[in-house]
Amino acid sequence: MSAAAARAMARADELAACTERPGEITRRYGTPALVAARDLLEAWMLEAGMRTRVDRAGNLIGTLGREDRPGIVIGSHFDSVVDAGRYDGTLGVLLGIGCAEQLAGTDPAHDLTVVAFCDEEGARFPTDYFGSRAFLGRALPDGAMTDAEGATLASGIEVAGNAAAEPGSGLPANAAAYLEAHIEQGPVLEAAGHPLGIVTSITGGAKLVVTLAGTAGHAGTVPMGLRRDAFSAAAEIALAAERLARDDGEAVATVGQVAVSPGAANVIPGRAAISIDLRHQDDDRRARLLARVREIVAEVAGRRGVDAAIEVIHDERSVACDPALGERMRAAARAIGLDPPAIPSGAGHDAVILSDHVPVAMLFVRCAGGISHNPAESVTAEDVAAALAVLTAVVSDA
Amino acid sequence: MSAAAARAMARADELAACTERPGEITRRYGTPALVAARDLLEAWMLEAGMRTRVDRAGNLIGTLGREDRPGIVIGSHFDSVVDAGRYDGTLGVLLGIGCAEQLAGTDPAHDLTVVAFCDEEGARFPTDYFGSRAFLGRALPDGAMTDAEGATLASGIEVAGNAAAEPGSGLPANAAAYLEAHIEQGPVLEAAGHPLGIVTSITGGAKLVVTLAGTAGHAGTVPMGLRRDAFSAAAEIALAAERLARDDGEAVATVGQVAVSPGAANVIPGRAAISIDLRHQDDDRRARLLARVREIVAEVAGRRGVDAAIEVIHDERSVACDPALGERMRAAARAIGLDPPAIPSGAGHDAVILSDHVPVAMLFVRCAGGISHNPAESVTAEDVAAALAVLTAVVSDA
Repeated sequence: MSAAAARAMARADELAACTERPGEITRRYGTPALVAARDLLEAWMLEAGMRTRVDRAGNLIGTLGREDRPGIVIGSHFDSVVDAGRYDGTLGVLLGIGCAEQLAGTDPAHDLTVVAFCDEEGARFPTDYFGSRAFLGRALPDGAMTDAEGATLASGIEVAGNAAAEPGSGLPANAAAYLEAHIEQGPVLEAAGHPLGIVTSITGGAKLVVTLAGTAGHAGTVPMGLRRDAFSAAAEIALAAERLARDDGEAVATVGQVAVSPGAANVIPGRAAISIDLRHQDDDRRARLLARVREIVAEVAGRRGVDAAIEVIHDERSVACDPALGERMRAAARAIGLDPPAIPSGAGHDAVILSDHVPVAMLFVRCAGGISHNPAESVTAEDVAAALAVLTAVVSDA
Repeated sequence: MSAAAARAMARADELAACTERPGEITRRYGTPALVAARDLLEAWMLEAGMRTRVDRAGNLIGTLGREDRPGIVIGSHFDSVVDAGRYDGTLGVLLGIGCAEQLAGTDPAHDLTVVAFCDEEGARFPTDYFGSRAFLGRALPDGAMTDAEGATLASGIEVAGNAAAEPGSGLPANAAAYLEAHIEQGPVLEAAGHPLGIVTSITGGAKLVVTLAGTAGHAGTVPMGLRRDAFSAAAEIALAAERLARDDGEAVATVGQVAVSPGAANVIPGRAAISIDLRHQDDDRRARLLARVREIVAEVAGRRGVDAAIEVIHDERSVACDPALGERMRAAARAIGLDPPAIPSGAGHDAVILSDHVPVAMLFVRCAGGISHNPAESVTAEDVAAALAVLTAVVSDA
């Protein structure tokens, strides 16, 4: 088993070399780096005895093809944020492939399909679970949407998608469950000394873009009292969102994107836009926080005399994981001497989208320092071996 | 006289078409748009009977060449900020050319040199009065510095500069005064009902870049209390700088440039950088504000656990205009029925740099709404005619 885990670790290193920018891991949708990573994954799926195909969006699907028995889908994503770590998403796909390898020559109780989703992060285009939505046969987003350099999503689909693929859902007819293994991306398991955790629910999250329009002007000649500074308004809203989340105690709020126009040091910003990522396990409390953000935006904009617009890019409910699937994973973990705690997922995952169609469960793998979306992401081969054992047992056993 | 003013207005429109981006006026250093504008200015100088040359940086110098009498240099800049108006800088150059036209066939008491500075705004490269400094023969800035797209200043000098030009100062040996006419870029003259103003002093200003380094991380999984969010720190510093200037009552502080990294909506910013433009007429008070900004940066960074660095791009003292030159302009204005008030300049101008070598004076022209660095910049032909009359009288009369 540790050989399989060592192989998964080595493959994560190999995939890390598929990057848009040497020296970092940046593998966004529709780039040659993404396609290179998928080619590696497909080769490993074929080695593991799977049949493979790529769908119209660019998701990679491998299956053992044992349609006579209930199916389990194991999946995660292989795109990355800018300057990412090597395990976010990727590890879940590699564990699915490892699982197929472990089952070779056996007669498992379940069929196995492994899905590598092509875009979960939305790091290039303003998409939202593009890969898993497309996998389920949903309409593709508007191809005219553009990345920061003005390239269209349609051009990205040309690079990454399979135009010859049949439309429709890629979910197998026999699919009884979706399992996703993922690094925790948080500090809880490490602090508690557990290699694995069984996810109870996936935190809902809203993503907003707040745009402020004031008046550009000369930085030296417009008195402070006569300014309509769009960035000052944006900064105030960002800090208010941070304070709201702090005061809540369980929410998190993040302003990760900031754009200021015209963007010269000696010009008062006439326009500013910020993203606000707001998450809370409790859907009602998240809705109240979101309403409060709207009030704050209106109050700040009104007081500063700037115009404000709020675009809700997404607002996803929290998703409960299937308790029975969780118990099967827990039993498999106990069989190898572990006692994984139940923990929530603060991050969104493709399981959110799959949960509309099939019971879902998630297995978290401990990561060093809780660090993710960062080159310093780190897991141990031992923890990866434990995760692989649990997944394999769930697919193998009735 | 109104024919000359109408010509200056029409030329400002013609120059506005020299732009990097159709639909706006953006004419930054080292671009073909800048060179196109200079070609027009040179043609008009030649029409006005001047001898012209371009120096190593790209400044355009035209002279009547009457070295037997004391010289007056009239100048301003012809580069622009991004999405600028059509009069900032440009009007002063056109008034200098108009002055030469008015003097044709006369025997003025002074020689006249008109200088069109190639880069005052520093809108592309992190330069500081590059044009006027180069005009005075000072060492050029480091050619390896880059714009936001990574192009070097050296490549900009190749486009805009004259490699065959002789080194050394372009200030004529007979130069007795530097005059700069400029739109006010503020609301004072319009509010007081005066077409022109005589500038008393040019406000000193500091430009800083504050860089914050925290820890990038996943927006969903890092609790608020464990974050080292570089942008939150930057936002707090920006608002504190704004408050400092407001509380002072006479200072202005502007954050016009903001950069956040990695810049994804679901990633906590690991790095952020903001520019701070801080101006005050009183050098001591500006120094105290600057010291206070440093304290605030240290306090915010310490409290938030981020690393902070402050780079002072420039810190210019306030410059007094020559009272005798101001009185000569006032007398000329009174001769045409005006009574221009004495007003300070909140904006920096090339006159600041020239003041090291020659007495300087500035004439402000009323502009609509005090708006500048904005496509809505507007002046009237009548006010331009008045400014032209004043400048011409000062050059013409003993």
